[in-house]
Amino acid sequence: MRATIIHGPGDIRVEDRPDPEIKLPADAVVKVTASCVCGSDLWPYRGAFRTPEPRAIGHEFVGVVQSVGADVAALVPGDFVVAPFVDSCGACPQCRNGVTVACDYLASWGGKDEAGFAIDGGQGQYVRVPRAEATLVKVPGVTEPDRELTASLLTLSDVMATGHHAAVAAQAGPGRSVVVVGDGAVGLCGVLAARRLGAERIIAMSRHADRQALAREFGATDVVAERGIAAAAAVRGLLGGVLADAVLECVGTKEAMDQAVACTRPGGNIGFVGSPSGGSELNVRQLFNKNITIGGGMAPARTYIPELLPDVLAGTINPGRVFDVEMPLEDAPEAYRAMDARRAIKVLLRP
Amino acid sequence: MRATIIHGPGDIRVEDRPDPEIKLPADAVVKVTASCVCGSDLWPYRGAFRTPEPRAIGHEFVGVVQSVGADVAALVPGDFVVAPFVDSCGACPQCRNGVTVACDYLASWGGKDEAGFAIDGGQGQYVRVPRAEATLVKVPGVTEPDRELTASLLTLSDVMATGHHAAVAAQAGPGRSVVVVGDGAVGLCGVLAARRLGAERIIAMSRHADRQALAREFGATDVVAERGIAAAAAVRGLLGGVLADAVLECVGTKEAMDQAVACTRPGGNIGFVGSPSGGSELNVRQLFNKNITIGGGMAPARTYIPELLPDVLAGTINPGRVFDVEMPLEDAPEAYRAMDARRAIKVLLRP
Repeated sequence: MRATIIHGPGDIRVEDRPDPEIKLPADAVVKVTASCVCGSDLWPYRGAFRTPEPRAIGHEFVGVVQSVGADVAALVPGDFVVAPFVDSCGACPQCRNGVTVACDYLASWGGKDEAGFAIDGGQGQYVRVPRAEATLVKVPGVTEPDRELTASLLTLSDVMATGHHAAVAAQAGPGRSVVVVGDGAVGLCGVLAARRLGAERIIAMSRHADRQALAREFGATDVVAERGIAAAAAVRGLLGGVLADAVLECVGTKEAMDQAVACTRPGGNIGFVGSPSGGSELNVRQLFNKNITIGGGMAPARTYIPELLPDVLAGTINPGRVFDVEMPLEDAPEAYRAMDARRAIKVLLRP
Repeated sequence: MRATIIHGPGDIRVEDRPDPEIKLPADAVVKVTASCVCGSDLWPYRGAFRTPEPRAIGHEFVGVVQSVGADVAALVPGDFVVAPFVDSCGACPQCRNGVTVACDYLASWGGKDEAGFAIDGGQGQYVRVPRAEATLVKVPGVTEPDRELTASLLTLSDVMATGHHAAVAAQAGPGRSVVVVGDGAVGLCGVLAARRLGAERIIAMSRHADRQALAREFGATDVVAERGIAAAAAVRGLLGGVLADAVLECVGTKEAMDQAVACTRPGGNIGFVGSPSGGSELNVRQLFNKNITIGGGMAPARTYIPELLPDVLAGTINPGRVFDVEMPLEDAPEAYRAMDARRAIKVLLRP
């Protein structure tokens, strides 16, 4: 099969790899019909994370079950499935608590399972999925989703689940004013998630016309292009003299977190899902004085997919709109370049 | 009148001060029947905070309304009242949001009101209370509470409201396992608050027999005397292999916060109310990886008192048990010494 391999900073190649096979009774092999490049894939691409040896990359995919191991009963070949961005067991205390991303047997696409077998990356033609029943979510009644539905289902792998996590953690909902820091795919999905949870007033922070437009399409009532103190002042002005009840931090930098704190009213909530780059720290005194509650982290996509899936299938949310570019898998190197240069919000790859 | 004045580190004196008078139409003057020394009073006492000039000290008191200004209708002389640990307006956006400690007109006992008039400290015989209707909470049907009730009402000024804030922020409640870091008056009240909110499993961290005993009386089901990694391991052992759902950080040091993080399960909640000493910082990556939600800060006592008061009056909670020493106001210097040396959990002062 063909699969995307990262060799080092700036060095993405699509190469031949062995077709995956069932290794363990709980495995499934999925034929990938759509995958994509994540903002977090850019970290090793930009050299922020080391890549000591070449490895398969990509952690968001949807596709069709090809074969299953002897212990897999709930999935059969032909099922269309969404894969969360990590592999989890569904049975440990963390999974039972819904925190699948802290699973005792957590495994990463492109990594290894606990038996030591390699797991394929998501940006390839096929993926062996350990603990397939626990990890994959079957899409009921769908075998060949059209392009639009495929794109929206694919967002459930990561960005829509992550935006939803930010909105939930920030307690976005009816009667709550919301600010979203970050206009990447996750931030835009955060806008959509806040709207879906019932927030009426949603302020998106963006200075790019295309992203501003999509934010408005997703439910943003206002857009703030300023940054720093000016942005907080703009929020205060829009909200009649108070800061926001709920702020979604969807970037992961210190600047974004500072921006989120500056936009949150006393007693308000921050939901943060931007994977923290660098040694980001929170000043406890600042949180204490403002009575800010902060929560979030890596989104338990596996827990959220069943909750979000019906709305995607009903077409009441269309998070797949975040994909503004589509390429064949063979063009993965160009997909990385486009994401890196912010020429694309998010690139969908077709194996 | 007699009032407690801090002159500098280790220098507490009880001195003559002018009897307070009504200065503004919204004022009341309260005759203090009980006051006390707070852990946070020890900060300037120990020199951790500067005391540039002598000032009246004390922010927890209960007493009887003596006189009221022309605009005060809801309070009359003779009413027994509880004073929250700060003075707030009740009308600004922060107060309407319940975050009275972030009031736009916030004033401190021992400080000045926005008109520039001095406000008395709580450790004295009388206190002029600005915005009296908004700040004070009348105790219905009570004019001369007995010693036990007085003590419990007095905790509503600060420590019981603060312990409650920690428990609320940590989402302590039915089905949730709770750890309380800190065995001072606030930590002990945190145990009581967690129990009151319905938590069945409450682990108190303490290595002092008297505090352990009171923690158990307040509802702790287990006591852990270890610290650091050993404490987290003990919690994990008590909870069947998982860490706690809800952790109350009731100290304010970096060590206590680290302890709280170490005891929280993935996806769990920390409620922190320990006034952060030093430059305490939270590692965002650590919170991200464990999906920990952290909230708290200065407790909005004014918001909580009406909620907690009925339980105190009914005797279903007796937070006044945290006062293990009682002294006349004239002995305030000794009260500070006893608290500083941890010879007392909390000292009640009788003017």
